[in-house]
Amino acid sequence: MAEERTRVGIIGAGPAGLLLSHLLHRAGVESVVLEARTRDHVEHRQRAGVVEHGVARILRAAGAGARMDRAGAVHHGIELRFDGRSHRVDFAGLCGRDVVLYAQTEIVKDLIAHRLADGGDVRFAAAATAIEGIEGERPRIRYGTAAGEQVLACDFVVACDGFHGIGRPSIPAERVRHFEKSYPFGWLGILADVPPSATELIYARHERGFALHSQRGPRVSRLYLQVGNDDHVGNWPDDRIWAELAARFALRDGGWELATGPITDKAVTPMRSFVCEPMRHGRLLLAGDAAHIVPPTGAKGLNLAMHDAALLAEALASWHATGDHTLVDGYSDTALRRVWRAEHFSSWMTGLLHRDPNGSAFDRRVQSAHLEFIASSRSASAQLAENYTGLPYV
Amino acid sequence: MAEERTRVGIIGAGPAGLLLSHLLHRAGVESVVLEARTRDHVEHRQRAGVVEHGVARILRAAGAGARMDRAGAVHHGIELRFDGRSHRVDFAGLCGRDVVLYAQTEIVKDLIAHRLADGGDVRFAAAATAIEGIEGERPRIRYGTAAGEQVLACDFVVACDGFHGIGRPSIPAERVRHFEKSYPFGWLGILADVPPSATELIYARHERGFALHSQRGPRVSRLYLQVGNDDHVGNWPDDRIWAELAARFALRDGGWELATGPITDKAVTPMRSFVCEPMRHGRLLLAGDAAHIVPPTGAKGLNLAMHDAALLAEALASWHATGDHTLVDGYSDTALRRVWRAEHFSSWMTGLLHRDPNGSAFDRRVQSAHLEFIASSRSASAQLAENYTGLPYV
Repeated sequence: MAEERTRVGIIGAGPAGLLLSHLLHRAGVESVVLEARTRDHVEHRQRAGVVEHGVARILRAAGAGARMDRAGAVHHGIELRFDGRSHRVDFAGLCGRDVVLYAQTEIVKDLIAHRLADGGDVRFAAAATAIEGIEGERPRIRYGTAAGEQVLACDFVVACDGFHGIGRPSIPAERVRHFEKSYPFGWLGILADVPPSATELIYARHERGFALHSQRGPRVSRLYLQVGNDDHVGNWPDDRIWAELAARFALRDGGWELATGPITDKAVTPMRSFVCEPMRHGRLLLAGDAAHIVPPTGAKGLNLAMHDAALLAEALASWHATGDHTLVDGYSDTALRRVWRAEHFSSWMTGLLHRDPNGSAFDRRVQSAHLEFIASSRSASAQLAENYTGLPYV
Repeated sequence: MAEERTRVGIIGAGPAGLLLSHLLHRAGVESVVLEARTRDHVEHRQRAGVVEHGVARILRAAGAGARMDRAGAVHHGIELRFDGRSHRVDFAGLCGRDVVLYAQTEIVKDLIAHRLADGGDVRFAAAATAIEGIEGERPRIRYGTAAGEQVLACDFVVACDGFHGIGRPSIPAERVRHFEKSYPFGWLGILADVPPSATELIYARHERGFALHSQRGPRVSRLYLQVGNDDHVGNWPDDRIWAELAARFALRDGGWELATGPITDKAVTPMRSFVCEPMRHGRLLLAGDAAHIVPPTGAKGLNLAMHDAALLAEALASWHATGDHTLVDGYSDTALRRVWRAEHFSSWMTGLLHRDPNGSAFDRRVQSAHLEFIASSRSASAQLAENYTGLPYV
């Protein structure tokens, strides 16, 4: 069994791993991406779809934003619905930034296409099984393929392999600290073949629970319902989903109707907050969900992963060009500032909009008062807009 | 026993009852204030000391602000301390408003002096024992004095008699709804004969718990420490208080010292959020702590009471002048909008700054991230400033 070598071994062909490999290539640094699943699988996973202002700029600057700019939709605000009324948060007016609606799965397709067109080395159905020697200078990734076990020796290993990947557990337990929070609810997400009933995203807080109206282009609606923690799709026939969505989005004065259509995908996602500190040990670096999870309410998961990849690309390119470790050494602290900002925002927005089954009547009134304040105060709205579109300050 | 009559019977000579009686007098409406305690007692109770911008204006407009403007201190900001560093929230720059540091007990003295100079009827050591007939047009207050039980017949009864008064329980239980929240900590407050160690208030969040540095004029410091829910002053000898305060206010770079001196007053206050809805039943109206309690972190208790009194004075004067009940009928809804805003802000600011003994490491990191965001975002700081100085929008 020959031992192959590369500069940067990347585990996971999600958005973080692919963007990192793409950015490293543009900086002249060789990498190999190992992905356990098939190309078809990773190109069809339904995930997030809100791209922050700053992340859209990263993609454009990397020459990977053309299809996003053609097929994605720039959104200048979102709508909040609560107590039967509607309030628009005008991103452009409040903070001068916007977001792009463009599905993560499309970003993955674009980045795979770029990597392959550039002669990049992305190996599908190549499941990393162990990471060795991360405290030395020559870490190695063991991975399995149809042809048997392989070994990839690297200068650095970057684990972009998600919450359940092998990256994070490869760091000795006594060298990291985990922070977590679980939520007493989850999201039931659907895709439906029906044109969106609104041009912008609608975040609805209702006594029956949270609901989100989103979209996947002009012909497909993406909708979410807050459900119980242990709920499952079997409890949710299509009719019940549409009735529940209609109730939660209803306006007091009527005048808005939810269009319905064939549901093509249904899944329940749990909600979790999680951070691993630090995001590096020796020659192993963590990025994206491997290091941190946010509940989806603030649309930050994809964006954090992309920021991690951009930071890492800069750090590893600097190391490659000059041998200077400063940025690599600083990666974890720099990334974690944005991560904790997003952790706060995501749990804040989750609390703002969900019905807490353990909450009191006092808590629910305070939640209403909070939403009313956002609707009446420019600074309160601006704070939401700044966070949602992505903070440039880190 | 002769039955006396007045237009408005007011129970409680705290800031709400006294301001209401003063404002009614200026509008030509007769009232009687019944206060269970002695004048000396109510003039020496240590309470809040932050007067909102709008409340200072109410006092000035009522001709009762002269001593406040001479002896009080206008504060243009507060200091937040966390993680060993300091951030100033510049009220003037962020929202164009300020607050006046002037002790509630001084406002009480001023209003009593005004009532007596104007020939007002404020009866001390007159303890209301029952409120009768509130569903009819001639409610009556029974009260005890040294001379025996008396009866005061009124057109309206206003209960400004605090959380433990007889006003709120006089409404049939099935006609009101209570909302509450308790907190797993309290405040140990001290008065000390030592010049304040800072010109502005310092709100400190520390791993050991919250601390607040305030003042009572140029020679007296008012200081608070977060303590356990069941803690008592016996656990807190002076040396321990000073050492704990010094630890919680410490800056990472040093350069700030807490001056110490003789402690002249020590008390532990529990923390509670509470709202009674509605704030009126028939001819009985509730104001101030009789209807709502906030934890002291946002300095809203006194200010809410004063706003209630100002609303009620306008409503009752309108009724008296024209027989029109519109403002009286709308009082509860109007007052509750501000009350719920303050309830949200007070519990928000409490959560921002206190150590939750039941909180996780994740919660504490998110709390730090929240404080850092306030220190780095103008809109996040402005939201705090708007609420702290008092919202004009209700």
